[in-house]
Amino acid sequence: MTKKRTTQSDLAGSELYDPMREPRYAEIATFMRAPLAHSLTDVDIGLIGVPTDLGVTNRPGARHGPREIRNSSSLMRTFNLALGVNPYELCRIADLGDVRLSHRYDLERQNEDIAAFYRVVHAAGVRPVTAGGDHSITYPILQALGHDRPVGLVHIDAHCDTMGEIDGSKFHHGGPFRQAVLAGVLDPERTIQIGIRGPAEVFWGFSYESGMTVLHIEDVDRLAIEGVVEQARAVVGDGPTYVSFDVDGLDPAFTPGTGTPEAGGLTPREAQAILHGLKGIDLVGGDVVEIAPQYDATSNTAMVGAQMLFELFSLMVLGPHLNRRGS
Amino acid sequence: MTKKRTTQSDLAGSELYDPMREPRYAEIATFMRAPLAHSLTDVDIGLIGVPTDLGVTNRPGARHGPREIRNSSSLMRTFNLALGVNPYELCRIADLGDVRLSHRYDLERQNEDIAAFYRVVHAAGVRPVTAGGDHSITYPILQALGHDRPVGLVHIDAHCDTMGEIDGSKFHHGGPFRQAVLAGVLDPERTIQIGIRGPAEVFWGFSYESGMTVLHIEDVDRLAIEGVVEQARAVVGDGPTYVSFDVDGLDPAFTPGTGTPEAGGLTPREAQAILHGLKGIDLVGGDVVEIAPQYDATSNTAMVGAQMLFELFSLMVLGPHLNRRGS
Amino acid sequence: MTKKRTTQSDLAGSELYDPMREPRYAEIATFMRAPLAHSLTDVDIGLIGVPTDLGVTNRPGARHGPREIRNSSSLMRTFNLALGVNPYELCRIADLGDVRLSHRYDLERQNEDIAAFYRVVHAAGVRPVTAGGDHSITYPILQALGHDRPVGLVHIDAHCDTMGEIDGSKFHHGGPFRQAVLAGVLDPERTIQIGIRGPAEVFWGFSYESGMTVLHIEDVDRLAIEGVVEQARAVVGDGPTYVSFDVDGLDPAFTPGTGTPEAGGLTPREAQAILHGLKGIDLVGGDVVEIAPQYDATSNTAMVGAQMLFELFSLMVLGPHLNRRGS
Amino acid sequence: MTKKRTTQSDLAGSELYDPMREPRYAEIATFMRAPLAHSLTDVDIGLIGVPTDLGVTNRPGARHGPREIRNSSSLMRTFNLALGVNPYELCRIADLGDVRLSHRYDLERQNEDIAAFYRVVHAAGVRPVTAGGDHSITYPILQALGHDRPVGLVHIDAHCDTMGEIDGSKFHHGGPFRQAVLAGVLDPERTIQIGIRGPAEVFWGFSYESGMTVLHIEDVDRLAIEGVVEQARAVVGDGPTYVSFDVDGLDPAFTPGTGTPEAGGLTPREAQAILHGLKGIDLVGGDVVEIAPQYDATSNTAMVGAQMLFELFSLMVLGPHLNRRGS
Amino acid sequence: MTKKRTTQSDLAGSELYDPMREPRYAEIATFMRAPLAHSLTDVDIGLIGVPTDLGVTNRPGARHGPREIRNSSSLMRTFNLALGVNPYELCRIADLGDVRLSHRYDLERQNEDIAAFYRVVHAAGVRPVTAGGDHSITYPILQALGHDRPVGLVHIDAHCDTMGEIDGSKFHHGGPFRQAVLAGVLDPERTIQIGIRGPAEVFWGFSYESGMTVLHIEDVDRLAIEGVVEQARAVVGDGPTYVSFDVDGLDPAFTPGTGTPEAGGLTPREAQAILHGLKGIDLVGGDVVEIAPQYDATSNTAMVGAQMLFELFSLMVLGPHLNRRGS
Amino acid sequence: MTKKRTTQSDLAGSELYDPMREPRYAEIATFMRAPLAHSLTDVDIGLIGVPTDLGVTNRPGARHGPREIRNSSSLMRTFNLALGVNPYELCRIADLGDVRLSHRYDLERQNEDIAAFYRVVHAAGVRPVTAGGDHSITYPILQALGHDRPVGLVHIDAHCDTMGEIDGSKFHHGGPFRQAVLAGVLDPERTIQIGIRGPAEVFWGFSYESGMTVLHIEDVDRLAIEGVVEQARAVVGDGPTYVSFDVDGLDPAFTPGTGTPEAGGLTPREAQAILHGLKGIDLVGGDVVEIAPQYDATSNTAMVGAQMLFELFSLMVLGPHLNRRGS
Repeated sequence: MTKKRTTQSDLAGSELYDPMREPRYAEIATFMRAPLAHSLTDVDIGLIGVPTDLGVTNRPGARHGPREIRNSSSLMRTFNLALGVNPYELCRIADLGDVRLSHRYDLERQNEDIAAFYRVVHAAGVRPVTAGGDHSITYPILQALGHDRPVGLVHIDAHCDTMGEIDGSKFHHGGPFRQAVLAGVLDPERTIQIGIRGPAEVFWGFSYESGMTVLHIEDVDRLAIEGVVEQARAVVGDGPTYVSFDVDGLDPAFTPGTGTPEAGGLTPREAQAILHGLKGIDLVGGDVVEIAPQYDATSNTAMVGAQMLFELFSLMVLGPHLNRRGS
Repeated sequence: MTKKRTTQSDLAGSELYDPMREPRYAEIATFMRAPLAHSLTDVDIGLIGVPTDLGVTNRPGARHGPREIRNSSSLMRTFNLALGVNPYELCRIADLGDVRLSHRYDLERQNEDIAAFYRVVHAAGVRPVTAGGDHSITYPILQALGHDRPVGLVHIDAHCDTMGEIDGSKFHHGGPFRQAVLAGVLDPERTIQIGIRGPAEVFWGFSYESGMTVLHIEDVDRLAIEGVVEQARAVVGDGPTYVSFDVDGLDPAFTPGTGTPEAGGLTPREAQAILHGLKGIDLVGGDVVEIAPQYDATSNTAMVGAQMLFELFSLMVLGPHLNRRGS
Repeated sequence: MTKKRTTQSDLAGSELYDPMREPRYAEIATFMRAPLAHSLTDVDIGLIGVPTDLGVTNRPGARHGPREIRNSSSLMRTFNLALGVNPYELCRIADLGDVRLSHRYDLERQNEDIAAFYRVVHAAGVRPVTAGGDHSITYPILQALGHDRPVGLVHIDAHCDTMGEIDGSKFHHGGPFRQAVLAGVLDPERTIQIGIRGPAEVFWGFSYESGMTVLHIEDVDRLAIEGVVEQARAVVGDGPTYVSFDVDGLDPAFTPGTGTPEAGGLTPREAQAILHGLKGIDLVGGDVVEIAPQYDATSNTAMVGAQMLFELFSLMVLGPHLNRRGS
Repeated sequence: MTKKRTTQSDLAGSELYDPMREPRYAEIATFMRAPLAHSLTDVDIGLIGVPTDLGVTNRPGARHGPREIRNSSSLMRTFNLALGVNPYELCRIADLGDVRLSHRYDLERQNEDIAAFYRVVHAAGVRPVTAGGDHSITYPILQALGHDRPVGLVHIDAHCDTMGEIDGSKFHHGGPFRQAVLAGVLDPERTIQIGIRGPAEVFWGFSYESGMTVLHIEDVDRLAIEGVVEQARAVVGDGPTYVSFDVDGLDPAFTPGTGTPEAGGLTPREAQAILHGLKGIDLVGGDVVEIAPQYDATSNTAMVGAQMLFELFSLMVLGPHLNRRGS
Repeated sequence: MTKKRTTQSDLAGSELYDPMREPRYAEIATFMRAPLAHSLTDVDIGLIGVPTDLGVTNRPGARHGPREIRNSSSLMRTFNLALGVNPYELCRIADLGDVRLSHRYDLERQNEDIAAFYRVVHAAGVRPVTAGGDHSITYPILQALGHDRPVGLVHIDAHCDTMGEIDGSKFHHGGPFRQAVLAGVLDPERTIQIGIRGPAEVFWGFSYESGMTVLHIEDVDRLAIEGVVEQARAVVGDGPTYVSFDVDGLDPAFTPGTGTPEAGGLTPREAQAILHGLKGIDLVGGDVVEIAPQYDATSNTAMVGAQMLFELFSLMVLGPHLNRRGS
Repeated sequence: MTKKRTTQSDLAGSELYDPMREPRYAEIATFMRAPLAHSLTDVDIGLIGVPTDLGVTNRPGARHGPREIRNSSSLMRTFNLALGVNPYELCRIADLGDVRLSHRYDLERQNEDIAAFYRVVHAAGVRPVTAGGDHSITYPILQALGHDRPVGLVHIDAHCDTMGEIDGSKFHHGGPFRQAVLAGVLDPERTIQIGIRGPAEVFWGFSYESGMTVLHIEDVDRLAIEGVVEQARAVVGDGPTYVSFDVDGLDPAFTPGTGTPEAGGLTPREAQAILHGLKGIDLVGGDVVEIAPQYDATSNTAMVGAQMLFELFSLMVLGPHLNRRGS
């Protein structure tokens, strides 16, 4: 099967058009310059935007994340050197557009829209890789992906995001993993949280009580990246696993464009080494969240986010149970 | 009566401390370096922040408006040259802090909190001048101020803000004046909207149907500022009047830090001339809204907002029915 | 004929999807959220990007213009109040994508690619409205549009752009109108240049010698906008006319994101009033050029550019000889 | 006499090198790409930087003004269209470098250094055009230029700058014109202050008491630019006159990069029209002050400053008593 | 004893008001959202701003540091995970406002004001944690704290700050530790300087001659953080110790908003690990200095500064001789 | 021999003027505040700007690099601590200005101009240290320096830059080292590339085929800096060697101002340690390229670039075969 890469207007004879060879600043911006899918047929991995920040507790702006990540993702190319793979050769990867949210001011309804969308995607056998949006979106995604069997989780973040209700809502971006465990779609024993820090520990008792493995940033220093990888692999095992990457897990110097920065985080090199170390796990979905472009004076945050999305689906194509193109 | 200006820590003998004489960058930032009130007693005009942007349709960020306006307002001093008045000499002016919002993710509940707060302020005989927040906050403020008698309105804005429901809510920032008319707290016949433009006219039929006077930016060019002032005074007459100033009424070159900029707006000089022209009206309250600091690379938007707040309460002290200090 | 507005992925039942009703930050960014055309059939007005800045003499960056204008153009809606028209009701308007440039480092070859593209568009009866790119792109566009009959021109700019060769090239962004006259595709007697200023007058003798009408910014002050409109209409008459809008015609406070800013320019309100005054001319094409997003800290320049593109095709649908939808 | 324009390294045969023809971003940045003078011989007009902001009351940064103005001034060219003159053809214009300040933390000593420098320049018959620095520098400049005969003054500013002592010093940037009058080097009767606004009027009684003409921004609206020019010419007459241009006289939308912005100011077009209206006065010196680049996200402030410096020496060469090249 | 946290206006029944639970963007900004003290009674640790940058040698702006740090410090919460302590439970911590400086243009007089203020604080048994301001402020602080017995010092910085007189002053920000040793208030044998780099070594001979321990950045690489901590503990021992944290000790990627950045510095993680390693020392005071917000496009510098202040007083409450609440 | 440091106007008796002692913001900006040379006589090391970005494939802007690096380089001083040398004491170091490019729009002609300039410099026995400009400039520099004998290369970069033709040119910034090997001026066996990453590996087969040593970022993690240094020294040996430093070799958090950022790069500390490790090699030239100031919101990129230039000529003066002052 030949994949025709034509997300763009093809007035000029697009049969030969390969967006990866075009100038990075040209044409409409889709995720990774991948084709914009009009159906789920012929798609193995779907790149999806969820443009909302209704769940944030502090600085909003992540609703603009998907667009800016699409824009910056034109910097990406096709070969993942560290993982030794060109994911486009193994799978059909497409931009599925954004989830449409019927209620702009109602977090609970938005969650329902998101869950419904991912159920359709999941039922079609398409593996989703998502660009947020704030972290509240991960709960409804997990509702869809973990419905039949709770998933495991590698969670890179400054915060555990297992808080309870704040100011009248339990669906805010500080608590998706609590809700997911309570809903039975996330297995806390198969969950590891990496990069945790900041002075809000008091709110995260649920992580410990439910049996999650929590690696504070000091633990990362202590274990070194090799030790972190070893522990992460041990926790998630070979069951279906999700990776949720909050860009505030990185130090704000690398990802300033986010809503709740915490000093003293991971470097992108460390985070990439962790992801590379997960090679071979059964990655059923992943997301990169909390990119707020208006705080991103250099656009580095969106660029790093695009890179991490690329790492995620590079990792995904190397997993054991994935649909593969033409197969 | 002597007003002691001591909003700040007075460890160093503050009896003599006049924040207006201190460096503008020193000490805690209150609105205009006015004292922070701990009760409504001894206050004639209350400066209030409403830190929410839950009602926006596009770029959020106005929740950070009150803090940044407080910060920039240190540039203000005491004498309003065009109006010929030092408002601090006529009235006791204080920072009343921010309205506390019990529900962070529920626009309707926030409206209730805001209305409740302003009812208390209003009942105490304190005239409120408000720093938003997005424009959705003006409806609950008017609920309090117009409860006994519908107020008139001078509304400077790029948008009429008389839309109906969007995506499941009628309380968003595009519709407060529709709600206020429907609630009987705003008199549309005594309402004038100035600076209207942009390609969303189709949503604003309510303005015309209800009897509001709408001056598009082309009308401002046609009438000149003198004509605008004349018409505004004719519309609001000598009844109780509110002034609502959305900074997107100005051209985005002057106020870039806002959520829905529209090219081709008023200049600050024009807006100030309009406000100065209202001298003598019975101003019962006013607000400056839609300042989103993260889009305000120069901080000019917050500075202009602070200036307009100063114009509003300078105007207010010259009105006919105001409590005055010591009286 | 029903226009289905579906530029985006329609996984969720897009028959009912109207991007103009969606949040402005959602989905893939096309010009004005118009559909992305895959052929020239069923298109009356084509919105086209030309992503190059190879012709600049000073600060580069306009190659990124089309993407950022697409992004900012989501702020636009459908009704042009001043012109009293919803252009989408009269014409089928689509995003035709970007012109593909086969040579990234050769200005002359790029010009050939551009001219070839516009010849195809022109032959199909589609009227082009273009987002640059630097001003060098207007010459090849005029080569296509003025091939059969030289066009007239309303040119808003700080610079006359009628210089000769610089540093080995005559195709730079300082000379497209000289080349167009010499190529016989632009009628200098039907050309008016508005907003000219800055200390480079010495290079623009060709404007005067060829018979163009040049209105310096001081002339705009002297004539007032009404006088400018009158003169522009007299110059271009009822023949086919092109409008070329260099954003540096505006004062840099309004459009900082450009390569050769000149203090003391037009305001957007003035420029819009000039464009509105052209209602009824036979507009065969138009462009907005020289938007360099990396110098546009507030994104206002792209937003103003999007507004001016909207003005251009609003004007175009009101012209005498245009294809109209379904006709 | 032939002027060799070689401020730069001439390794490549600079006899033919004309910096005005070179790319604007090339080579070392001098004011206007003028030659860097190593003596006062053969110079008619000297462009001088005074890199200090020790006198500011609020936001510092103007110490970086001269460098950034030099950088931005490469955008300037040679012909002043409105004044009809190429100043380089009439006078020898050179960059004299920066005044060296022996005491970095002592405002009073700095004033002495500045006065000493300008006395040397003045004695050599060179007319100085200065880039600040904060406004405190104008007093020592006037000490040198007005020593023999008090000068007249056209002062464009938001503030009168005639305050007395603040916090232990009378030499701050809010009072240079008070000191100059008291020192007998400035004639208040021949002084006009244009663009004044902001809520600090109470500090400027000295302006009125000493006999200065003060035009508030509302007066500018009332008189129109023609009236302002008329009054300015009447005030300064044909005696020796200085022009001091504080960029905060302009609206902060045009010149955000300054320390004490005030909403509602002049536009550059208005300011240029005022300066052009002064054609023929005996301009003995001029300055552009208060440019603080770190607040100038777009670099527009430095660009406008460079333009105003160009206007100043264009005006200067048209005056009655100037040394002219070769004469 | 119950600590009522009410720094803000308590119109709405503040008895129950806990600012740490409020949205981070709400209300007046005090350091850490701690109460603003009106006396020194009932305060154990005082957070103090010193808003001056009169001592800088290069880019000014640190006068705006205290305000911006107050603003960013709302991101902090209450529990210090690495140190295992909630400092608010052990001590009464309050914002003491800013030191008032009677002379705005006289560095020497400012030093006297600062020393006087800290003598009062010290005499009251309150331990000060200070937000600068430039580094010149540390000398007068040490004059107060080290008066009875010279203190030891852990000094994190890119520069040794032991220079002598520059341009007429010895009190600039490049020399406070030289002055402190010469005044007998700092014990050089108990002083360690960490992170030193940059090409100005020649000025810092005093550090070596006086007996300070200097760890260049290369030494940090060589010793690793564990070795640095070991050496720091050995140097300061169990005597009274001060920690002075200049944000330019960190790499400019993490703290761009500072006046004299030097490439190749510490990471926040390293700096935090060093501070955590000091657990148990007798910390009598600390400061974070040289934050210049106008160079801090992302606000990360102020955020990191707030974090380091939090680390300092977390460390302080764990020391041996501190007043504790209610005790 | 005494070196008089007078790059600036010496109206005030400059015999004693030492720019290194002056405020960093004062006077005209030359590289490192070194004197601007008017001939090659008496120069040992020449600092040269090459202001072009015609060769970039993505974001342009590096044409502005030399000016901004000159500006930021005022932060440098004279002593290189890690290398233990004051290079100004050993060699005569001067700013040679910028290479003049006769063709602004023709990459091939620009290459010829550059090669010609460096041949003159090389023939004069002056060692060049260059500030770019994009990476395409290194090929013509090597044409000059490697003409007699191919040089070795230490190349720090995210990209191998050994691609072939793109879009009609082989001289773009992605291929200079391929061209240099093919031209016989670069010895691939003596070439090491450090820091390589990003998803474009497929284009760099030439590096491997020609025999270059390629160290990916993962190799740097694996070998540690000591291992990298060892390998670099082994590769280049004691023959003539060039160091080319592309700032995108560093992580974009440290150098955001560049055209093709790649997440996960070197830190400045690592890069400096690598350069310091090269002490003693025969460095015949070096460059720092790809600094695009308009993407450099903090100016850190230019500052880091200046630091690396300082490292390069500090290293150079310690080499075995260099001309030394007075010798």
